[in-house]
Amino acid sequence: MVKVVAICGSLRKASVNRALMRSLQPLAPEGMEVVEAPSIDLPLYNFDIQAKGFPDSVTALADAVRGAAGVVIVTPEYNYSVPAPLKNAVDWLSRVPNQPFQNKPITLMSASPGALGGARAQYHLRQIFIFLEGIIVNRPEVMVTMAGSKFEMVDNAPTVLSDQPTKDVVKQNLAAFAKLIAKMG
Amino acid sequence: MVKVVAICGSLRKASVNRALMRSLQPLAPEGMEVVEAPSIDLPLYNFDIQAKGFPDSVTALADAVRGAAGVVIVTPEYNYSVPAPLKNAVDWLSRVPNQPFQNKPITLMSASPGALGGARAQYHLRQIFIFLEGIIVNRPEVMVTMAGSKFEMVDNAPTVLSDQPTKDVVKQNLAAFAKLIAKMG
Amino acid sequence: MVKVVAICGSLRKASVNRALMRSLQPLAPEGMEVVEAPSIDLPLYNFDIQAKGFPDSVTALADAVRGAAGVVIVTPEYNYSVPAPLKNAVDWLSRVPNQPFQNKPITLMSASPGALGGARAQYHLRQIFIFLEGIIVNRPEVMVTMAGSKFEMVDNAPTVLSDQPTKDVVKQNLAAFAKLIAKMG
Amino acid sequence: MVKVVAICGSLRKASVNRALMRSLQPLAPEGMEVVEAPSIDLPLYNFDIQAKGFPDSVTALADAVRGAAGVVIVTPEYNYSVPAPLKNAVDWLSRVPNQPFQNKPITLMSASPGALGGARAQYHLRQIFIFLEGIIVNRPEVMVTMAGSKFEMVDNAPTVLSDQPTKDVVKQNLAAFAKLIAKMG
Repeated sequence: MVKVVAICGSLRKASVNRALMRSLQPLAPEGMEVVEAPSIDLPLYNFDIQAKGFPDSVTALADAVRGAAGVVIVTPEYNYSVPAPLKNAVDWLSRVPNQPFQNKPITLMSASPGALGGARAQYHLRQIFIFLEGIIVNRPEVMVTMAGSKFEMVDNAPTVLSDQPTKDVVKQNLAAFAKLIAKMG
Repeated sequence: MVKVVAICGSLRKASVNRALMRSLQPLAPEGMEVVEAPSIDLPLYNFDIQAKGFPDSVTALADAVRGAAGVVIVTPEYNYSVPAPLKNAVDWLSRVPNQPFQNKPITLMSASPGALGGARAQYHLRQIFIFLEGIIVNRPEVMVTMAGSKFEMVDNAPTVLSDQPTKDVVKQNLAAFAKLIAKMG
Repeated sequence: MVKVVAICGSLRKASVNRALMRSLQPLAPEGMEVVEAPSIDLPLYNFDIQAKGFPDSVTALADAVRGAAGVVIVTPEYNYSVPAPLKNAVDWLSRVPNQPFQNKPITLMSASPGALGGARAQYHLRQIFIFLEGIIVNRPEVMVTMAGSKFEMVDNAPTVLSDQPTKDVVKQNLAAFAKLIAKMG
Repeated sequence: MVKVVAICGSLRKASVNRALMRSLQPLAPEGMEVVEAPSIDLPLYNFDIQAKGFPDSVTALADAVRGAAGVVIVTPEYNYSVPAPLKNAVDWLSRVPNQPFQNKPITLMSASPGALGGARAQYHLRQIFIFLEGIIVNRPEVMVTMAGSKFEMVDNAPTVLSDQPTKDVVKQNLAAFAKLIAKMG
């Protein structure tokens, strides 16, 4: 089994991206286990905090990323870029010893209510991972537009991805991700 | 007098960008007052928090931006992009009623120990402010490279900007900023 | 009357972006005249050519931009960025004396058969115009997705923009453009 | 022997980037042969030309890229982005059957007279190669600042790279490139 960790870029409980993240396992290729990463509800990054020692929550997230064969990031776009909670998690992890994203295969997915499906957040993330030396799946890109209409809803919250074309592209993306992991491993 | 607020993108007390921010007033054109914005040490953005009401610290920052004739952002670059604390402040302010950055003249400065001086953070910020409809000074860009060597140091912490070529470009940038404010006001 | 020049980023005769460019006049606010720029079918930029003197076609394009109150760029996206013919025109114009884009109000539109409507080309153009000191309309952005279906077709070539929601956003964009010209003029 | 092709993004004969390209062989790891690609002095991309058949110069370049184990791009930055001649070559190659950049290891280098060393051109190239599914070396990035002073000059033209720190980073980059080729091969 290849174990990958999944990080949701939003802290919101009823996030459509969380629903997408939780829809991944049945779409993953055989032999890939998708495990949710520890919470990214970390302190706001401040070197003065770091100087006193890394918070346990940071260490837990770093360990999870380091121990996984790859990372799936499923994120909204806030203001044409990466959401603060996700950038904050990345900023913390970039500082721990044995930087966890180095040479790590990564795949990006995003969902948004708008017409671009989070594309702009993904391109900024790609630039970030140049520095951190992550290795990112090129294509197919998963950018779920008009996301509200593509999930089953329970009590006004999105639950399971139900749109078949979106399921297909997610499946292809995870297959490409598995190949990248095999190649880089 | 034209009052502008200055936001430092780092929470670190001894931040070189904070030192740069505090060096601006004597370099500003006559008639421009540079005032430090309230703290950006805000809760990490979460819609579930917002749903219960905006934190007072968010409202204070939003009011300061709304009440100013322009905004100076002085920021480090973290991982080839915008530092989480700054992105977090922007993400919060994007949600308050009467969005504070709309049509607001903005100027960007960055300082870093590296060779690019924070350029990558600035270009991501520019994309963010398309959505928020801020109006950003084009040139001269202020990207302070090898920043450690360009400030007076007291107790190992940078204090006042001392590098003359950097002072010159900051002065030109603030003059262009004043012109933009006059035009858009 | 305010005269603006329109540049199409593609050289293809039956380009959907050319059709979009030619659909602008009836959507422009009263008092704005949209005039097609001279051809961008220029020699490929080479300093060794420039050293012998600017080609007449470059000078003609530069004069047209310089003489206009603003520039409308209507462009496809090639390979997630700016099409070579458009970048080539910009590279030439950046070298002529009295650089034509300086302080020039600009608005960007793009159309593509894909899901993102040329967004990525627009963000790269925005970065280019920081250096050239153009002043670009923020919003609404005009990114025409699935462009094939939004135009009347004659002999398999797109002619007039027929999609009402797209016409509405183009109209709003040109109104914002007129305001920007008035402000910066 | 691993054969890689090198493409210079400028058409200028005395280009500092051409000089950098021609300085690569002695810095390449054992077993890597760096061969200059055929000329990128191609017609300006136009679908109407393509419809009549690909120009021979395009086919020659495509064949060279397809036949190489990897591609080294050495390019200036024009107007904060990719130079038109290089973008034009990429736009042409993206259209030929059996797209030559697919799954091809690529490394990027740039040199400029300015302070950023062509960084902005490289980040735009990276976005372009997502679509074309190239696989790009992450780090160390080769961005040669103040390039004029780092080469031997003959008759006012740069010839051989002489700056030792730059030679070191080029060497490390080519070593990382060789590793990537070995992994993806």
